[in-house]
Amino acid sequence: MLGSIEAGGTKFVCAVSDLNLNLIDKVTIETTTPSKTLQQVFQFFTKYSIRSLGIGCFGPIDLDIYSRTYGYITATPKLAWQNFNFVQTIKEQFNIPIAFNTDVNVAAYGEFKLGAAQTKNSCVYVTVGTGIGGGVVLNNKILSGKHHPEMGHIFVKRDAQDDFIGNCPFHKDCLEGMACGPAIEKRWNMKPINITDDHKAWDFEAFYLAQAVVNYTLTLAPDMIILGGGIMHKANLLDRIKATSLALLNGYFELGKIDDYLCSPKLGDNAGIIGGLLLAKEELNQA
Amino acid sequence: MLGSIEAGGTKFVCAVSDLNLNLIDKVTIETTTPSKTLQQVFQFFTKYSIRSLGIGCFGPIDLDIYSRTYGYITATPKLAWQNFNFVQTIKEQFNIPIAFNTDVNVAAYGEFKLGAAQTKNSCVYVTVGTGIGGGVVLNNKILSGKHHPEMGHIFVKRDAQDDFIGNCPFHKDCLEGMACGPAIEKRWNMKPINITDDHKAWDFEAFYLAQAVVNYTLTLAPDMIILGGGIMHKANLLDRIKATSLALLNGYFELGKIDDYLCSPKLGDNAGIIGGLLLAKEELNQA
Repeated sequence: MLGSIEAGGTKFVCAVSDLNLNLIDKVTIETTTPSKTLQQVFQFFTKYSIRSLGIGCFGPIDLDIYSRTYGYITATPKLAWQNFNFVQTIKEQFNIPIAFNTDVNVAAYGEFKLGAAQTKNSCVYVTVGTGIGGGVVLNNKILSGKHHPEMGHIFVKRDAQDDFIGNCPFHKDCLEGMACGPAIEKRWNMKPINITDDHKAWDFEAFYLAQAVVNYTLTLAPDMIILGGGIMHKANLLDRIKATSLALLNGYFELGKIDDYLCSPKLGDNAGIIGGLLLAKEELNQA
Repeated sequence: MLGSIEAGGTKFVCAVSDLNLNLIDKVTIETTTPSKTLQQVFQFFTKYSIRSLGIGCFGPIDLDIYSRTYGYITATPKLAWQNFNFVQTIKEQFNIPIAFNTDVNVAAYGEFKLGAAQTKNSCVYVTVGTGIGGGVVLNNKILSGKHHPEMGHIFVKRDAQDDFIGNCPFHKDCLEGMACGPAIEKRWNMKPINITDDHKAWDFEAFYLAQAVVNYTLTLAPDMIILGGGIMHKANLLDRIKATSLALLNGYFELGKIDDYLCSPKLGDNAGIIGGLLLAKEELNQA
């Protein structure tokens, strides 16, 4: 059996499957402290004899296998999890092969192998919610060097009519600071879900996310970009981003059909769990 | 022997070397029309018996080997070269293995293998001159999918005091439109070389290029970024970009030592030619 953990800032989702990735069991655990949360994680997996485990974890994390702190969650604002040696803690409980990467990279891998990008050679997966994050798969491999991408924090140009200062604690008006859910809420003093379709908020949102699409496209030249996360559930937002991306690119770069290039995730909320199982299977095959 | 062509918009540099990359001969040819320029290129290489050829070409070019127009220069504003079948024209003259990529990708590869990034696993090479272009090497390989990156055209935020409209014919105020040599000249009505070190022009320039450094860093997570091209010869500009990049990142991303992360090219004007020879050698070994 294979195991998968989607370790998020508010909840952990754990799952086991057979070697063909058929789901056997799944559980959701609240994220509190490492010891409390991991105790429940262990309880769940102990019921099964998993042979390998794939983990997609909130960041930042250390992915440099030559680093002293490989497998750690590093400078997260979630204090209880700062400098937590995630991989080692799991290893001490279950001495099995472990794949470890960021939540968005693992979700990108799930969408790449079995989701929206299944027929492509590369993809970028972006999630727009409480924060903005992205994962990249190029030539069948998750992109990460000594560090993983943090592409939600790139800078983009401001809408000339937008005087919101931005709410990223590090960069103020980076993409995340201008376009994540809490930024929308703070700018308009309304929950995004309560903002009407014709509100200017969505013009701004489409403008910022379209610039992100353009910048990722010009820098990575992927075969497609998948836009997911809570904010992307907003009706018509994807269509607006498509139109604005094309207008901004202005014919400079050959995207192919925009409807094939910019898409919603196909695995929905399961992208992370499925990506984790895929990585667990590969880890087992290589072990 | 190995052959290398650095095909630029104003000149072609051609070179031959032995199999150990020791330079034997080199010539510079004016870029006029394909037939006139290529005639001189052929004349040069016919003197030697080259066994393979590496080409770094101005773009946009078609790198998709499954495409009907693979090996073409595509939508360039240089009309004589639009839709020119570069690879096939060379193949008809010399029936040898040919590596074909963008000028910046090939230069990036030269710097990666034998230059500033020699000890690294990945690098981004950016040239700031008449235009702004970038090449990427990740895990020993040049990054390019169906398309090559066009990372000089990303969007970045404007300096609040900068009212220059931008001079990119496609995107107006993209990075290239705000920070390439002609943009500086147009904004200040002075040649960049005549602008004094303490002029505000260099604050703007450092601000835009530092944002590019930040965006490439957060998107690609490379081991280092190399900044070359005519504008980068400006005294202190690299140091200013280092300081501004660190200020903008604000501790969010672990770069290591900034002096090891942001560097000048080591091969200088030879990066493209050497990159081409390296690719020619690999092409020969694989043939």
